[in-house]
Amino acid sequence: MIEQSDTTNPQSEIQNLKLPKITKSPWVRTVRLAKPTLQDNTADADRLISALKSDLQTDAVHLDLDLVKKLPDLLRKWEYNIRCILFKDRHHWLVTGIVGDDDSRSFAGLAIDLGTTKVVLRLLDLSDGRTLGESGFDNPQLAVGPDILVRIHFAETSGGLERLNELVITGLNQAVQDLCRSCRLEPRDIYAVTVAGNTAMSHLFMGLDPRWIIREPYIPAINTPGILKAVKLGLQLNAGARVFIFPNVGSYFGGDLIAGIFFAGLHKLSETAILVDVGTNAEVVLGNENWLIACAGAAGPALEGGMTKMGMVAGPGVVDRIAIDPDTLEFDLHTIEGEPPKGICGSGIIDLAAALFLSEMIDMRGKFVPAACGQHLKQIDGLAHLVVVPADKAATGSDLTISQADLDSLIRSKAAMYTILETITTSVGITLKDLSSFFVGGTFGSFIDPRAAIAIGMLPDLPLNSYKPLGNSSLEGAALALTSVDFLKEIDRIRDRITYLELNVNQEFMNRFSAAKFLPHTNASLFPSVNKGG
Amino acid sequence: MIEQSDTTNPQSEIQNLKLPKITKSPWVRTVRLAKPTLQDNTADADRLISALKSDLQTDAVHLDLDLVKKLPDLLRKWEYNIRCILFKDRHHWLVTGIVGDDDSRSFAGLAIDLGTTKVVLRLLDLSDGRTLGESGFDNPQLAVGPDILVRIHFAETSGGLERLNELVITGLNQAVQDLCRSCRLEPRDIYAVTVAGNTAMSHLFMGLDPRWIIREPYIPAINTPGILKAVKLGLQLNAGARVFIFPNVGSYFGGDLIAGIFFAGLHKLSETAILVDVGTNAEVVLGNENWLIACAGAAGPALEGGMTKMGMVAGPGVVDRIAIDPDTLEFDLHTIEGEPPKGICGSGIIDLAAALFLSEMIDMRGKFVPAACGQHLKQIDGLAHLVVVPADKAATGSDLTISQADLDSLIRSKAAMYTILETITTSVGITLKDLSSFFVGGTFGSFIDPRAAIAIGMLPDLPLNSYKPLGNSSLEGAALALTSVDFLKEIDRIRDRITYLELNVNQEFMNRFSAAKFLPHTNASLFPSVNKGG
Repeated sequence: MIEQSDTTNPQSEIQNLKLPKITKSPWVRTVRLAKPTLQDNTADADRLISALKSDLQTDAVHLDLDLVKKLPDLLRKWEYNIRCILFKDRHHWLVTGIVGDDDSRSFAGLAIDLGTTKVVLRLLDLSDGRTLGESGFDNPQLAVGPDILVRIHFAETSGGLERLNELVITGLNQAVQDLCRSCRLEPRDIYAVTVAGNTAMSHLFMGLDPRWIIREPYIPAINTPGILKAVKLGLQLNAGARVFIFPNVGSYFGGDLIAGIFFAGLHKLSETAILVDVGTNAEVVLGNENWLIACAGAAGPALEGGMTKMGMVAGPGVVDRIAIDPDTLEFDLHTIEGEPPKGICGSGIIDLAAALFLSEMIDMRGKFVPAACGQHLKQIDGLAHLVVVPADKAATGSDLTISQADLDSLIRSKAAMYTILETITTSVGITLKDLSSFFVGGTFGSFIDPRAAIAIGMLPDLPLNSYKPLGNSSLEGAALALTSVDFLKEIDRIRDRITYLELNVNQEFMNRFSAAKFLPHTNASLFPSVNKGG
Repeated sequence: MIEQSDTTNPQSEIQNLKLPKITKSPWVRTVRLAKPTLQDNTADADRLISALKSDLQTDAVHLDLDLVKKLPDLLRKWEYNIRCILFKDRHHWLVTGIVGDDDSRSFAGLAIDLGTTKVVLRLLDLSDGRTLGESGFDNPQLAVGPDILVRIHFAETSGGLERLNELVITGLNQAVQDLCRSCRLEPRDIYAVTVAGNTAMSHLFMGLDPRWIIREPYIPAINTPGILKAVKLGLQLNAGARVFIFPNVGSYFGGDLIAGIFFAGLHKLSETAILVDVGTNAEVVLGNENWLIACAGAAGPALEGGMTKMGMVAGPGVVDRIAIDPDTLEFDLHTIEGEPPKGICGSGIIDLAAALFLSEMIDMRGKFVPAACGQHLKQIDGLAHLVVVPADKAATGSDLTISQADLDSLIRSKAAMYTILETITTSVGITLKDLSSFFVGGTFGSFIDPRAAIAIGMLPDLPLNSYKPLGNSSLEGAALALTSVDFLKEIDRIRDRITYLELNVNQEFMNRFSAAKFLPHTNASLFPSVNKGG
């Protein structure tokens, strides 16, 4: 098994980016009201609002009619000492709940990463930002189609949009109930929700028609949904709960990415950094405290069948780390949870390609070198395959192999990635070497070994400590918003400052792409740290 | 019949205070949006909001999710030329509806005078402020009790509050449907509503528990409800319709009075004026552009069984004007709609008392002078009664009379009224002579002849043109709000500036009251215009 002590440990890096500890919660306020008298006969609601305005130093506090209805009894029952749970939209502080001063229940917030494939939930304590629990479930819309495009077309059929909306809302309500139970809470303890998803998923979540997202000129129904009532969205939480939906920049740059930028803090850095998120699409954001530039989506045919289709989904028994002994050329495999190998995931394939290249079993074009591969090489249906795990050691009972076609596909993907990175940096007149930090989001960022990705020229040859895996940056961004009083202003500012760069697959792009199709690159001087045979 | 040409004509005075003609509507905006392109891919909702922000010179425009859902189709159907119907709360412009640029339907607003006894509706065209129709109906809560106190106690019983709320909301929905039909509109054409009612009625309308309104220290659930969604209140109007509820100053000074001040424009006058509203209670507001002082409610026992119980409700056949020929002492009566007399309303009783006093048929204590009354006087059950209409001329077939007890009661009421007026003016160091205008609200104000009221010393002896009847000032104020873009700010300012004067029935008050119990007053020099025998 591979020793990981000398590699960049994604976990320790994630620690650097963890959520801040809240000392004084912005969302839970104890309010001690002066009791009314004949001389001070201000109404209950106005009395509370006035106290909150003074406490919060604001001139806009909103109290729903439903809470006003309960207020007179609550105030008298608790002798005018209460706690208010708050949230904040662009123009008001919103009172979402009122409880007695001695109520010991938790007031929870819920962060949602609304993925096309998977939905992940995290429950937080609004009083201190502490994580209470986390869970995930497969997006129930997968029953309609794995691809967002299929779902959008389905949404156009009669009742289709309602069905897709119902699937995700019902799934969320069920998951919330389960997660709450495991945390000894109830859904009614949830007062604030933040949702980060791509533009199409956010539309389906809100029940908005997504049809114009995929038709030129690609117009969403809404960019900045802001804060809505949970009950209005069909979510079964506290009656006063509010839902913040991360804004999008357009049809192909969604709230999930805005959440990632917000979490990475790219928009607050004095030095220029880059954020790469490889999920269903590959998205890149470059910038600093002064500007942000982004590109996203498939860069023409270059990425077709690329990054996202590489390897299998990580899970028990999936090979995620591969090294090759330079002397014996023996494969040293690490599988998830140590179970017998049954397949290779993306990071495993990148490790494998890097190891094959460094041990000269493939050449700089990514082609197998039969002399070096020796007995590992097999011809199947006339195509060269390298046996990574022989049948007798594989969980599947048949050889685990990588074919020349797989390698060619990987080369195209890594070349496309590098080309996009080069194109976006060049567009603002800097080089990849100028980047102070390189944030890598998604499972891609969590599992990839930057040394392997550099070795094959997928990522630029920056110092290893420049690479900062973000984990599930959508979820982290959504959770961060629940701990920050001015999140909406900050997120609006991020959204408004993003310049979207249309990636034109022109001659210049193709030239860069061709140069990047070598290992690590035609211009080896760009990768001084990559030493073959090391 | 009485000639009215030489009397103050309430109608002509009301004309002076009629609603302004809107030249450019603040609430209906034509918006021509730039069509989206690949270079300008702003989402539909954000595109509309941005155009409205620029048009309205604001940074806060709110668009409901329900409208966002319809927006993509609507914009494409109407090629990005639309009209928006708007309303405005404290912090946002609210988009309440969106229609095609060529839609010729009316966009209606609804002003509601939410009376304890009667509810009056007026439908306006939001485009130009024009009145489309008006109707009224008996408050269905009368089935529970005629008195607001009875209803508040009923609200405390199980299901009582819900029942009272349902009664008024159902009644309104029915009345709106009928009124709309008569105007060839539908309830869905109504986008904005303003409601002026006393504090208890406003609470019952919103479904708020009114129990603390009547218990020391008399605390409403809310003073400033602001703007709510119609659908939230159970009103069946346009789905986006909003409802503004006039604020109250306390349990005994409601939104109906704020609406009256707003309509009279008391808060904008450079010279000090007074507004008197006699409905279920007698309320008085004194002030100008710099300050407002108010007192309201029953002034102790003085007003008990007073103003409000005087005479019968105006209607066909009710005597509303009475004169006495100084030579023949013959009664000259005017009945509503000229029908045979069946009773006397408040203004008729004041006319009668004034005429009896001026023709010396009653003395300055309000007692019948048998020698002067002659055959008009009868003893019934040992109490002196004056026959106003003999049985053969009355619709009822029996004598229409006024008893000594009725007169005593009138004297107490008029004395209480004058005492309150004297007390409130004295409290700010001015006299009644200093008042530039005397606004009189309610049916009392519409029907009373100021000369008669002055003759009995109920109202001060000001020039007749100082008296300005306001008609249904709650309804007029509610209607005015629908035509004024900054109504909410202006009404908030009125509310916040009102100082409430607690009327202490102390020795000084009782001294004033005793002095006012003469006709027109102990100090006749206060009423130089009153000449007996004239």
